[in-house]
Amino acid sequence: MITLSLIGIGTGNPDHVTGQAIRALNAADLILIPTKGAAKSDLADVRRQILAQVLASPAPVVEYDVPVRADQDDYLGAVNDWHDAIAQVWAACIAAHPGAQSVALMVWGDPSLYDSTLRIAARLPGLTIKVIPGITSLQALTAAHAIPLNTLAAPVTITTGRQLRDHGWPLGATTLAVMLDKGGAFTSIDPTDTVIWWGAYVGMPEETLIHGPLSEVADEILATRARLRAEQGWIMDIYLLRRGGDV
Amino acid sequence: MITLSLIGIGTGNPDHVTGQAIRALNAADLILIPTKGAAKSDLADVRRQILAQVLASPAPVVEYDVPVRADQDDYLGAVNDWHDAIAQVWAACIAAHPGAQSVALMVWGDPSLYDSTLRIAARLPGLTIKVIPGITSLQALTAAHAIPLNTLAAPVTITTGRQLRDHGWPLGATTLAVMLDKGGAFTSIDPTDTVIWWGAYVGMPEETLIHGPLSEVADEILATRARLRAEQGWIMDIYLLRRGGDV
Repeated sequence: MITLSLIGIGTGNPDHVTGQAIRALNAADLILIPTKGAAKSDLADVRRQILAQVLASPAPVVEYDVPVRADQDDYLGAVNDWHDAIAQVWAACIAAHPGAQSVALMVWGDPSLYDSTLRIAARLPGLTIKVIPGITSLQALTAAHAIPLNTLAAPVTITTGRQLRDHGWPLGATTLAVMLDKGGAFTSIDPTDTVIWWGAYVGMPEETLIHGPLSEVADEILATRARLRAEQGWIMDIYLLRRGGDV
Repeated sequence: MITLSLIGIGTGNPDHVTGQAIRALNAADLILIPTKGAAKSDLADVRRQILAQVLASPAPVVEYDVPVRADQDDYLGAVNDWHDAIAQVWAACIAAHPGAQSVALMVWGDPSLYDSTLRIAARLPGLTIKVIPGITSLQALTAAHAIPLNTLAAPVTITTGRQLRDHGWPLGATTLAVMLDKGGAFTSIDPTDTVIWWGAYVGMPEETLIHGPLSEVADEILATRARLRAEQGWIMDIYLLRRGGDV
């Protein structure tokens, strides 16, 4: 019986890694590292750097190319096909190492939050799946701004840029965390009485933060995001929106 | 200028502690530990245990009694008074150690999520506040059940037991994470087509998990919760509810 451990590693700061993650990586006899092409090579580098820091003895590391997702109109259909393709790559990597009993995958952030690893793993029958939690970019964002996620005893909604663009501000929400935004979904909502805390590369050396009333800082965020993306070749950003004044 | 570091330590598993938290604890010249009375003495023990594991050299540790929150009808008013009282205790502890420049507080879970530490710290003028993120009980719950928090590309709402009881299932939500439930708020909603993933003491040796259709496992959860609470003298639990079938 092969165990596949999905190990949350935080957001690119090797100092986010937990003792539990270090233990799980050292217990692995096969470690898979996704390489996402030149633009996001930093992400594979972070994984290699973490392994160099935490492994007490070398383990077999296999790097694999992540298949490209089709850019078709049927978003969910495209994602499902893409996950099938990744599952096949993992199965091939594992089959090529028949002695491996404990396979590890390092997951950006935490495997529970807007990450496909659990869904892809579910496509591989006969594996025992183990999850090690890691610091999410949402936590890195609130930590960097030193703000709470929720207002006192109130709910929080976590959503995606696509949801915000397509469906607007969720009814009844006062705090909205937005992830996976391809850029500027916050321009699609009424900025009245709305505060934004934005961060790019949160937790990493390139961390860049902006916060203020959405009506005042929206343009600055858009310009900063475009500049950083051009400079770094890639961008990962996240933001928290709050309505109603209370913090 | 005194820095107050609010350090997320995860949910009672010393292995949840990150490298960043270890570094921050070692940089502190004063560490405050809340003692919450006999029933929750385990929580102070976990903090002492973490310090014993991670401190390279001893730092001054001050234990303080957390003031008791008044059980008055005005919930938010009672909480505000309580936070004022705790801020006064912290100020007194810091004043009693005039040489301390870097004060640390270990926060259960993550300082951003249903935790008062940031709001209490904001009552102390002239401090620089630094936040170190930690693994939340919500992440420990999804890791233990090996499930994603969100369904594919869909939003998630995080709320409290009180909110669920008082306001019912949030309009439009499909995934609802419930924290701080004094017990059984899930019995106040229609269980049709609703699945629950429940956990007590998540991440700790006493971790106990139940999941299934809410209509089938609600009674088992209530009975298990009552038994565990009687056995341990305290309980901390959390759950995820999902409607609509998709996982």
